[in-house]
Order: sequence, then C-alpha cells, then structure tokens
Amino acid sequence: MGVVVDFGDSGKRKASIEGLSNLVKADLDRVNKTIIENMQSPVALIPQLAGHLIAAGGKRLRPMLTLGAAALCGYEGERHVKLAACVEFIHTATLLHDDVVDESELRRGQESANAVWGNQASVLVGDFLFSRSFQLMTADGSIEVMRILSEASAVIAEGEVQQLITTNDTETDESAYLEVIRGKTAKLFAAAAEVGAVVAERPKAEQQALESYGMNLGIAFQLVDDVLDYSAQQEKLGKNVGDDFQEGKITLPVILAFRRGDDEERAFWRRTLQDLDQQEGDLAHAQALMAKHNTLADSLDRARHYAAIARDALGLFDDGDAKQALVDVVDFCVERAY
Amino acid sequence: MGVVVDFGDSGKRKASIEGLSNLVKADLDRVNKTIIENMQSPVALIPQLAGHLIAAGGKRLRPMLTLGAAALCGYEGERHVKLAACVEFIHTATLLHDDVVDESELRRGQESANAVWGNQASVLVGDFLFSRSFQLMTADGSIEVMRILSEASAVIAEGEVQQLITTNDTETDESAYLEVIRGKTAKLFAAAAEVGAVVAERPKAEQQALESYGMNLGIAFQLVDDVLDYSAQQEKLGKNVGDDFQEGKITLPVILAFRRGDDEERAFWRRTLQDLDQQEGDLAHAQALMAKHNTLADSLDRARHYAAIARDALGLFDDGDAKQALVDVVDFCVERAY
Repeated sequence: MGVVVDFGDSGKRKASIEGLSNLVKADLDRVNKTIIENMQSPVALIPQLAGHLIAAGGKRLRPMLTLGAAALCGYEGERHVKLAACVEFIHTATLLHDDVVDESELRRGQESANAVWGNQASVLVGDFLFSRSFQLMTADGSIEVMRILSEASAVIAEGEVQQLITTNDTETDESAYLEVIRGKTAKLFAAAAEVGAVVAERPKAEQQALESYGMNLGIAFQLVDDVLDYSAQQEKLGKNVGDDFQEGKITLPVILAFRRGDDEERAFWRRTLQDLDQQEGDLAHAQALMAKHNTLADSLDRARHYAAIARDALGLFDDGDAKQALVDVVDFCVERAY
Repeated sequence: MGVVVDFGDSGKRKASIEGLSNLVKADLDRVNKTIIENMQSPVALIPQLAGHLIAAGGKRLRPMLTLGAAALCGYEGERHVKLAACVEFIHTATLLHDDVVDESELRRGQESANAVWGNQASVLVGDFLFSRSFQLMTADGSIEVMRILSEASAVIAEGEVQQLITTNDTETDESAYLEVIRGKTAKLFAAAAEVGAVVAERPKAEQQALESYGMNLGIAFQLVDDVLDYSAQQEKLGKNVGDDFQEGKITLPVILAFRRGDDEERAFWRRTLQDLDQQEGDLAHAQALMAKHNTLADSLDRARHYAAIARDALGLFDDGDAKQALVDVVDFCVERAY
C-alpha cells in the first residue's frame, strides 16, 4: 500500500520499525547468531571488545535492510543471513574507528569501547571485524556482493576522511556536506538493501531500486541524526548532548545558520566551531540561532525530500507486508525527530 | 642452487634482495603504477597521505614475494601484478594503523603519517586502502585469493591485538611471542607468496610450499627486526633508536634476558617495560644485560632456524634464477643483522 504519512496531520498512526522487525525476526535471530559465532577468536580481547559494542544493541537497522530487501524480492534461500552479518560487521568496524576518530566516550548509551579498552584495541578490533566480514563474503562466494560491499567500504572511508577535512570549516556548503553523509552513512544503507536484491537474483532495475531506496533513506536518516544532536530529543539516542557542536562538526543545521546569519553570528560560529573556543552558554546560543533561522525545521524538510525519494524507489515492487515494512522505516527515520 | 650461507665464515658472498629485485623489476614497475592509480580518490587527502608512506619506499618486499613466487611457478599471465598491489595495500593499511597504535613519530626514516596528519586521518586512510585492496581482489575475481588474503588480514589483526595485550607483560613467554609475530608479520609474507602459486594454478603442494616459505621467512624477518631494535645496526632501518624498549614491547631478546636473569635483573625489566618507569641509561643497561646473557645472538640463532625451514620449503621447485632469488631473500633477512 506504500502509504505516505502526512506529517502535517495530527492523529496519524505513529511509524515504527516494528513492521520490519517482525517481518525479519526469525532471520535476524540467525544473523545475531552468525555475528556471535564469527566474532570469536583465540585472542579473548577481540570477542570481549566486539561483544561490548554488538551486545549493546543498536537497532541492527542495516542488516534488517538486507533481510527486508531479500523478503521484498521473495528470496527463499539462506545467503542473506550471512551477508546481513557482513553488513553489521562493516558497520561495527566503522563505529569502532569513528569513536577513535571522534574521541567519543559514549556509544549507544554506554561507555564506548575506546573509553574502556583504549584507542589501540578499538582500531585493531575494527580491522579484525572488517577482515572477518570479507572472510564471510568469501565463504558466500558472490563476486557481485563483494564488489558492492568492498566499494561501500571504500566510499565510507572516503566520506569519513572528507568529514575530517570539513570538520571545523564553517565555509563548508550544503553539497559538500551531502557528499560526506552519502559516503559515511548512506552508502552502507544502499549496499545493505542492494545485497538483498542481488542474492534473490532479481533484475538489475530492482537491484538499483533497492540501492536508491537505501541511499535516500540513509541520507534522510543522517540529516535527522544531525538535527537531533541539537534538539531536545537527543537523550533518546543515548548520545552525549551537543556532541557535534563540541567537536566542531559542520552539519546542515549549522551550515544553514551560518549562511543565513549576520557578521556577528558568523563570528560566533567561527569562534565556537572553527577555533573550538567554546564557553558556557555557547551551545544554548547556537540553538537559539538555529531557532531564529529555522534551520532545524528546514533541515528536516530536506530529510523529508530524501525520504520521499526512498519511498518512491519502491514503486516497482508489489504492495504487501515487506514493502509496507520498508516504507515504515523511512517514515520512522523522519518521525523520530518529533 | 639453494646455497646455505655459512654465517661463521668470512669472505663469503653478501646476500641481498637484488636478485629478486632484478628478477621482478618489470613487474614491480607495473605494481607501483597499479598502486598509484588505485590510491587515487576525489578526497585529496587520501592520495596525499597514502602517497607519503608509499612514496617513502620501503623495500616492497611483500609484493616482490608474490611476483617472485609467480615467477618460480612459471606464471605468464597478468593477474599477479594487481594482486601484488593488493598485498602492498594491506601492508600499508596495517602500517598506518600500527603507527597510530604505537604512537610512532618516524616511519621509514621520515615523519610518520600520524605525526603529520594526525591519528584520525591515518585510521581512515588505512581503512580506505584496506577496502581498495578488496576492490582490486574483487576485480581479479578469484575466490581462492580472497580467501587467502581476507584470512591473512584477520590473522594480522589478531596478532596485533595479541601484541597489545603482551606489551608491558614481562611474563610473556617465547611461544606467545611467536604467535604474535606469526600473526602480525609472517602471515602476510605467507599469503603474499602463496598467492603467486595460486594465480599460476600450481598443485596444492606447491601452494603450501610457498606459504611455508613465506611464513618462515616472515618469522625470521621479524626476529631479526626485533634484534636490530637493540643493536648498533638500527639506524640503517630508519627507525627510532630503542623504540621497542621505550614502548615496553616484549620481544625475544627481552624474554630470554628476563628468564635468564636474577631477581634484580627481573626487577629492572619490570620497572622499565612493565611500569614504563625509564631513566637515562636504562636502554644501555638493557643492552648490557642482553650482552651478558647472549640474548641478541641467541635470538638470531632462532631466526636462522626459521630461515633454514624457509629455504627447505623451496626444495620442491627446480633450481634456477627464481629459486636462487627467493633463497637470497632469506639469507639477506638474516644477514642484515651483521
């Protein structure tokens, strides 16, 4: 039925990822089992550290996309389970490396792995999980899947490097920012969904449709994440309050506020995000400037644009539970900002 | 002819890697070209940082092993060039991550990438090169090669984590130490050589012989490296003097000295390497204890043992330039300690 939720309306059904969770529940249990089995190593610190992050949960959104896409494509084999675990391993490896790069102390509402075991172990266990992911793909044996996921890994790294460069650069514009989030977030969503169609051996058009679904969902997801970092909803994420501000990350709410601001405001953004000279009250002032220029709401508008593309990308597929579940994920990603 | 050099002799021919360099020269030029082409990215910092390390040279020993093994197996195709580049990318990625882990400031006689661009960029560019390596393997299309190299990557990470755990632990014994160097160094040597036989589609016994050659060469190589870190020859390596001592790395010369020492000596090792409480003169004292217990010379004896196995592993193959070149590499790895 591919329902498009009207956000302007009141009294509407609240979107959630429960539809997808229920759809893929049995498969996801097997993915979790595959993950646990494959993070084992004679070097005990590896399952210990990896388990800390993996057990902490997270939504398993990316592997669920692989499973959901496979369901949408009517796939009835076994390969999607192992490949969904690959996707989660790549994601976990990038989280471990991200937390080192960001010097984060919290992840998923608990102490981050680097805070507990140090940066060095986080780098190396990330490398291990990344390698293990390729071992699993090799066992699967599909060159096409390896092409998709190895390209995704390279693009993720490019996106992260690009983000490192744009961090603290208040001149960053919206398109440079979009390139960053395409790489660091959306590409893996795209690959995760595409792999579901590839194992089902669906026509190229359907593979591309799912890739586009994942890519646009991922962009919307990251835009909303960046809004939440400045909004009252952020405690729900289990993230530090105002993390992005503190690190001088240039996200869309900032980019719009900088461009819409006057000289004094730009001086404020330069001092706080470029020079990282931050004082008490600065975060509140940043939020006030965003409110003044309506940049959180407008960033959400941008997110809704990509969400709409993601929904339409599924137009090729027959209506049914699987399609509805994937549409609900899009709606949920945007609605969680409210 | 598989000559075994008698190290006790004077006036002997000095072993070098020149035989191998000459044998694979044309191929290695193409490997270097492939490396340069594949480290490109729209994100300029990536080729900049990767190029800093790759241009700094290093011996290209690992890709040369792939090329030399392919030559020994009479391979006449093109695939070994791309796969040798994969091996070098994996090696470069691990060097970048190692330098972050070790907080090194020098690599190959110049400032390390993390010292110039920071740890964050080094982690991410390492991830990029690692991903790019898998993209290249995917383009090659051999599941067997991917199996070998993805397993090697996982084992390298395990070895590095194991090393992290044993660092500062003066109770580490010789077999735990051997496990570490098998993983962090020898496994990639083994994989590099094995891949040369795999592309040539040689019988399993020859693939295994080259794997064993690489593994034992790698162990000998690392043992000698660890000796050099305490010896007068170390400046030749372009490494900081006494790096391992300063970081509290537990290598074989230390393990033997600890086990052969008296209580006072063990207290010295615990203070300097476990508690990292080091004062001026400590490195010299460490070297004096190693001389007293003959641990550098005995570590080199151990290296010669593995070198002998590496040479014998080549026994299956016909004598000729390729075999001689690979034997010379073994001799060189040990002789550079003199």
